[in-house]
Amino acid sequence: MKGLMQDWPLTVMSIIDHANRFHAEREIVTRTVEGPIHRCTYSDIHLRARKCAQALQKLGMKQGDVIATMAWNTHRHMEAWYGIMGMGAVCHTLNPRLFAEQLTYIINHAEDQFIFFDTTFVPVIEAVADTLPNVKGFIILTDKEHMPETKLKNVYCYEEIVEAEDGNFEWADVDENDACGLCYTSGTTGNPKGVLYSHRSNVLHALAANGADAMGMRSVDTVLPVVPMFHANAWAIAFSAPASGAKIVMPGANMDGESIYELLSTERVTVTAAVPTVWLMLLGHLEANEVKLPDLTKVIIGGSAAPRSMIEAFERDYDVTVMHAWGMTEMSPMGTLGSFKAGMETLPFEEQLDIKVKQGRAIYTVEMKITDDDGNDLPSDGVAFGHLMVRGPAVAGGYLKGEGGNILDEDGWFDTGDVATLDPLGFMQITDRAKDVIKSGGEWISSIELENTAVGHPDVVEAAVIGILHPKWDERPLLIVIPKEGSGLTKESVLEYMDGKIAKWWMPDDVVFVDEIPHTATGKIQKLTLREQFKDYTLPTATAAE
Amino acid sequence: MKGLMQDWPLTVMSIIDHANRFHAEREIVTRTVEGPIHRCTYSDIHLRARKCAQALQKLGMKQGDVIATMAWNTHRHMEAWYGIMGMGAVCHTLNPRLFAEQLTYIINHAEDQFIFFDTTFVPVIEAVADTLPNVKGFIILTDKEHMPETKLKNVYCYEEIVEAEDGNFEWADVDENDACGLCYTSGTTGNPKGVLYSHRSNVLHALAANGADAMGMRSVDTVLPVVPMFHANAWAIAFSAPASGAKIVMPGANMDGESIYELLSTERVTVTAAVPTVWLMLLGHLEANEVKLPDLTKVIIGGSAAPRSMIEAFERDYDVTVMHAWGMTEMSPMGTLGSFKAGMETLPFEEQLDIKVKQGRAIYTVEMKITDDDGNDLPSDGVAFGHLMVRGPAVAGGYLKGEGGNILDEDGWFDTGDVATLDPLGFMQITDRAKDVIKSGGEWISSIELENTAVGHPDVVEAAVIGILHPKWDERPLLIVIPKEGSGLTKESVLEYMDGKIAKWWMPDDVVFVDEIPHTATGKIQKLTLREQFKDYTLPTATAAE
Repeated sequence: MKGLMQDWPLTVMSIIDHANRFHAEREIVTRTVEGPIHRCTYSDIHLRARKCAQALQKLGMKQGDVIATMAWNTHRHMEAWYGIMGMGAVCHTLNPRLFAEQLTYIINHAEDQFIFFDTTFVPVIEAVADTLPNVKGFIILTDKEHMPETKLKNVYCYEEIVEAEDGNFEWADVDENDACGLCYTSGTTGNPKGVLYSHRSNVLHALAANGADAMGMRSVDTVLPVVPMFHANAWAIAFSAPASGAKIVMPGANMDGESIYELLSTERVTVTAAVPTVWLMLLGHLEANEVKLPDLTKVIIGGSAAPRSMIEAFERDYDVTVMHAWGMTEMSPMGTLGSFKAGMETLPFEEQLDIKVKQGRAIYTVEMKITDDDGNDLPSDGVAFGHLMVRGPAVAGGYLKGEGGNILDEDGWFDTGDVATLDPLGFMQITDRAKDVIKSGGEWISSIELENTAVGHPDVVEAAVIGILHPKWDERPLLIVIPKEGSGLTKESVLEYMDGKIAKWWMPDDVVFVDEIPHTATGKIQKLTLREQFKDYTLPTATAAE
Repeated sequence: MKGLMQDWPLTVMSIIDHANRFHAEREIVTRTVEGPIHRCTYSDIHLRARKCAQALQKLGMKQGDVIATMAWNTHRHMEAWYGIMGMGAVCHTLNPRLFAEQLTYIINHAEDQFIFFDTTFVPVIEAVADTLPNVKGFIILTDKEHMPETKLKNVYCYEEIVEAEDGNFEWADVDENDACGLCYTSGTTGNPKGVLYSHRSNVLHALAANGADAMGMRSVDTVLPVVPMFHANAWAIAFSAPASGAKIVMPGANMDGESIYELLSTERVTVTAAVPTVWLMLLGHLEANEVKLPDLTKVIIGGSAAPRSMIEAFERDYDVTVMHAWGMTEMSPMGTLGSFKAGMETLPFEEQLDIKVKQGRAIYTVEMKITDDDGNDLPSDGVAFGHLMVRGPAVAGGYLKGEGGNILDEDGWFDTGDVATLDPLGFMQITDRAKDVIKSGGEWISSIELENTAVGHPDVVEAAVIGILHPKWDERPLLIVIPKEGSGLTKESVLEYMDGKIAKWWMPDDVVFVDEIPHTATGKIQKLTLREQFKDYTLPTATAAE
C-alpha cells in the first residue's frame, strides 16, 4: 500500500524558490574578481538564475547537457549554478588548480558544452581551448567593461547575455533523480573520475547539513564559505544557506588571511568553513595584528585533518567553536561533523580537544562502519582501525560512464579508501588512507599519525611517511622530512622527539631530509610520487635483517 | 541523464538504525502508565522494536497490514511504532478522546487488524470491541503483573509477546513511498478522513524538523513531547529525536502542571512541545509554587494559537524562548515555526512579541501562499488575508480510500481551510478558519480576532464568534460569551471594551451569554454546532435594516 502524500520532487530549484519566497531580503555579499564589494539578495539571485537559464537556452543548451564552470565563490557563480541546474542541465565544476592535461581529459570526458569562467582563468582556459573540440563557447563571468582581451573564439560576456533576458522562465520539469551536478575526484591514481550528483542527492544532503547538530545554518547566520564551489560542492553551502535563509559572504579570489579577516569582520560573519591552510593564514593574521572576531561563533574545518594546535587556538584565544568535518567528493561531500554530545561541554579543555581532533559523528542519512581486509565488521571501541565504509542517498553509487566499474560491495557499501576508528559514542577518527597504511608484520601502522607526531618537532617544517619494502616485516615506515632552514636538524633529534609519543614498533626505521614534498592539486601529499621516488631505497634495518 | 548516487530509500527504520549506531547510549525516560519512571536507551528501543515486529509476524501480520495504537507517550508506544512500521505495516494512531461511534467508524474504515493500547483505555476499547468485526486481537501495553481484567477476546500482553522474541530480525524491504503511518483528521464536518503517511514523507519531515531554524533538535538536547503520539505524529518528535540523538522524556498519562513540571525539572529537559492548554497548567504551577526551570531553553507551542500573555510569561518570567508553530494532520504536521530572522533579537520586547504571536515561517520543503476566493495570489504585505495554500513532500495528496475526492487544485496546492496573512519577511499569521470567517458586505471579518479581543475583558471566560445571516450585509458577527460567574457582565461592557481595539465595522452586532461553548475532541470550538444552535437568531441590526 502506497502512502498518499504529495508527489513533490526534491529539486535544487525548490531551494532557491524557498529563499526567494521566505528570505527575499537576505544578502549575498561578494568580493568581486574585479575588486569592489557587490551586494545582492536571494530575490536577485533567483531572478538572475532564471535569466541565465534563458540565456543558455538561447545558446542552444537543453536538458541533460553538461555545462562547466571554473570560478571563485561569487554571486555570479551561484547564479550560474542555479541557472544551469534550473534549466535541467548538469553543472560541472572545474578545479582551476588541475594541470592542463587533466583539464583537457575532464572537459572532454564530461562532454562539456560551454564553460563559464572568471577573468582570472583566461590563461588557464586559453591554454587548453584547442584541445576541446566539443566546447561550443565560453562565457566570461564579468561585465562588458571588464571583458578581457582573449584569443578564444565564441566568447560571451555573462552580464550581457544574462541582462538581455527578462527572467520569465519556468524551471525545467526534472525528475528528482536527474543529474544536476558533476565533480571529478582529484584522482591520485589513474584518471580523474566523475561523481554525478542528482537533484535528490543535493537536496537531501542540504537538509542533513542544515541539521542543528551538523552545520546547522539558521536564518540569522551569516556564512562565509572559503571552501570553493569548484571543490566538493562548497560543502553544500550554496544549497544549505538559501534553504535556511542565511546571508552568504562570497570571498571571490582572495583567500589570504587579511582578506578573509576583513570580510569576516566587516560583514559580521557567524559561521565559516575552509581547509586548515586557510585557517593557518587567518590565525597568523589575527595574532600579528592583535585583532579578534567577536561575531564569529563557529569555524568548520575539513578537507584534511585540523591540527590540535589550530583547534586550541580558535577555541582558547578567539572563543570560536571549532567543528571538525570529514567527507569526500563522492559523499556530496559531508559525512561527519564534530558537534558535542551530552556531557562533553563540561569536560576539561584538554579532554574536549581529544574529542575535537576526531573527525566527528556521521550525520543522519550517512551510514558508516569499519571493516578488516576480509570485510568483517570491526568494533566501535576507538582502538580498532579498519576500512571506512559508507552508504547513503548522497553517496556515489558509481562514476560517470562506468569508470572504475562497480564501486559498491554486495551490500551497497562504498569504500572511502580511508582507514579509521569509531569510538563507542560514534565519533570517527581518520587514521590513514588505506593505501598509505604501512603493513608491518600483519599489523597496520598509521602514516598520518607518524607525520602528525613528527611535525610537532619545532625544526620540522613538513613530514611524510611511506612504507618501504622490508624482507622480514613486509613493510616498515620511512620518515621524509623538510627541516627548518638552518636548524641543523638531525635524524637522532627527530626520533628522540618521537620516542614515547607512539608505540615502540611504530618508530620509523629511517629518516631522510628533503627540500620539497610533492602535493596534489588539492594540497594533499602525493605519496604515490614519494613511493616512486624511494622505490629503490633500502632501509638500514633491512640489511641488518638479512 | 540520471545522477549516479546510491539508491538509498528514505525509511523510518533508517532513523532508529542511526540512533542505535551513533546514539546507542542516549536515554528514553518514561513516566509509565503503571506509575514508576522507566529508563531505557535507543539501543533498547532498537532491539525491542525488532522483537515487536517479530511478535506481529507470529500473529500473522504482514507487510501492508494496518495496526492501530491507542496509547500515551511511552517507550513501549515508540517501540510499537518502529515495530509496526519496521515490518512494513502501517501504524494507525487512535485518539482516545474520540466518541465511540467515531472510533468504530475509523477502525473499520482503516481495516485495523490489531490494536495496541494502554491499560488506561481498556474501557474505551471494550465499549467498541463488538463493533469491530475485522480486529483480530488486542495487545495491552503492559507486563504480566499489570494485565487488567477484561471481557475482550484475543488479548495479548505486550511484554510477554515481545520478550518471547530474540530480536534477530531484518527490517522489511519497503519502498520509500510505501505507507507507514495513518492518522484521521478530527473532522468537524462529515466523517473523519485518513491521512496516509509514507516512509519518505516521515523521513523528509523529520529532516526538515531538525533544521536549526525549525525544532532544531541536537544530541545534547533533552526533549519532552507533551504533544501526544496519537495526535499528528507528536509533531515528528519520535522521528526527529532519534535522528539527532536527543534524549526523550515521555510523560505517559499525566499532563497536569505538577507532573509536567516534575519531569521537566528532574530530567533537565531543554526543549518541550505542547498545545496552549498544557502550558496554561504549567505556568499556573510555576507561579503558584514560585519555581523556575533553569535547563529549559525552548518551548514549542502549536495546535492552536498561543496567547500573547503566555508567550510573554515564558519569555519574561522564565527566560524560555517560545517558538510558535503551526501545522495540521495533513502536513505531517509541521508547516511553520517562529524562529527569528536577523535583527529581530535586538528589537524591543513588545515588538518581538508582535512577531512571536504570528505562527512563523514555512520550513524548507513546505511551499505556502495565500489566495482570494477566485484562486488569485494575494500579496505578502502582512495585511491581505486569504486562503492558506500549501504544497510539499509531507503534505497530503489525498485521503484514504479517496474520501473527499481530489483535494488538490490543478497546480497541486492543498487548501488548509485556514485564512491567513503573510508578511514581507515570510511570517504567516492565521486569521481564521475559512468556514468561520464572517463575510460582511464582500469583506472578511476574522472571528478569531474578535474572540481574542473579547477574552481580554476580565469578566469573559470564553468567547466564540459566528456569522449570522443579515439582509443587508450577508453576514454580521454574533459574539457568544461565557461570563465570569457572579460578575454581572453586560453586553454594553463587552462592546465598550472592544471598541477601539478593532475596526469599527468589525464590531459584533450582538452579544449573547451562555453557560457552555461546545468543543471538539481536540479542544477546538465547535462552530458548526454553534451555527446550528443560533441558525434562527435574528440580529437587532437585521430588523433595523429591513
